[in-house]
Amino acid sequence: MKTGKLYLIPVKLGPEGRISDIPQHTIDVAIELKSFFVEREKSARAALKEFGLKTSQSDIELFDIGKHGQQQGFDEQLMRCFSGEDLGLLSEAGAPAVADPGSRVVSEAQAMGVEVVPLVGPSSILMALMASGMNGQNFAFQGYVPIQKNERRRFLKRLQSFIERDDQTQILIETPYRVQNLLEELSSHLSPKIQVCLAMNLGLPNEKIEKRSAADWKGEKLREKKPLAVFVIGH
Amino acid sequence: MKTGKLYLIPVKLGPEGRISDIPQHTIDVAIELKSFFVEREKSARAALKEFGLKTSQSDIELFDIGKHGQQQGFDEQLMRCFSGEDLGLLSEAGAPAVADPGSRVVSEAQAMGVEVVPLVGPSSILMALMASGMNGQNFAFQGYVPIQKNERRRFLKRLQSFIERDDQTQILIETPYRVQNLLEELSSHLSPKIQVCLAMNLGLPNEKIEKRSAADWKGEKLREKKPLAVFVIGH
Repeated sequence: MKTGKLYLIPVKLGPEGRISDIPQHTIDVAIELKSFFVEREKSARAALKEFGLKTSQSDIELFDIGKHGQQQGFDEQLMRCFSGEDLGLLSEAGAPAVADPGSRVVSEAQAMGVEVVPLVGPSSILMALMASGMNGQNFAFQGYVPIQKNERRRFLKRLQSFIERDDQTQILIETPYRVQNLLEELSSHLSPKIQVCLAMNLGLPNEKIEKRSAADWKGEKLREKKPLAVFVIGH
Repeated sequence: MKTGKLYLIPVKLGPEGRISDIPQHTIDVAIELKSFFVEREKSARAALKEFGLKTSQSDIELFDIGKHGQQQGFDEQLMRCFSGEDLGLLSEAGAPAVADPGSRVVSEAQAMGVEVVPLVGPSSILMALMASGMNGQNFAFQGYVPIQKNERRRFLKRLQSFIERDDQTQILIETPYRVQNLLEELSSHLSPKIQVCLAMNLGLPNEKIEKRSAADWKGEKLREKKPLAVFVIGH
């Protein structure tokens, strides 16, 4: 019997995104599957419905990796691959296992000897980098900014040193309601000439990409109060 | 008159790749264009032909950014956007402006006030990261490894310090004929327990993803002599 594989399936960047941003091959693979690791059941069901899943929603199985305790593994679900079943892994938006908890599932699959197959699809981090016009030969995704104020400041100063010393482009994400706040901090804590590209709502109807120096962002009030935002910082 | 935009258009990861890995929206945008910044004319023409370009090949204009001297800008070509023309930017493989010279074109477009639109498509860097099962909340793409032997060694030690200190996953690429060599260096210069995921020929018929500790890669002779390879290193 053939051993099943774990397919890593990107989804749209938001409910308003285009289904035509998902490659046909990704859809063709996904719609044959019956069991998926997901970050949030509701958005996963919506994504799979739009893909045109062959199995009815009541017959698919979703394993919620968000709810899953850190102690517990995914080995029970992954064992199905050894009965020949293929499994899927979806993120809540964009590519799974990038800036989300999915990498734990991938890593466990590999430890068990299950083959992992990454599929093509949207990633706001990659699209923001492409659109930044900054160094794409050396870049780092630093994840979410720390919440505590002094830590945030130290964190931003450290990113600045990577830019200045290594010309390494820095990529950050922030929760929608803190985007305005982070923009203000960047404009006041970074060297005035450092470039900040703010990529908002990528792949969505209200996509907006704007790039200015830290100094030129000063005093800017964003029209949209809670955008999905990726910050790209560099030269 | 509407100002034209610069569309950033990903292409297949190699000639043997699936056209169904390119989203329909990306193709729909690309086939309407007549002028493209490209990294290599030959592969760009092949990619555009497969997309099903509406304009005949003899009527499209390609601006070769590879040949282009560092001194010279792209402003003459980009000026066309102010006459209402949309332009495209293609890489040789994967996403443009990531690990290729395309970011210069994007950056000039932005300086001139031309709107940039990133489109969805394959990226071997992103797919390798997804498939590595390593930390996807903090990662760096370090580009090509330096050529000189001592520098290579220092470079790898530095990457190791980012892994150990920050749990930052490190991503590298290497030219196909040096992949075996780099694998040997990683297995002898890195701490034995550091994980090395070698993602070869992603999105191509001979795709192979293998992950082992540095120690366990020792003595490994790759079957394929010149794979397209992305290395992902971390915990």
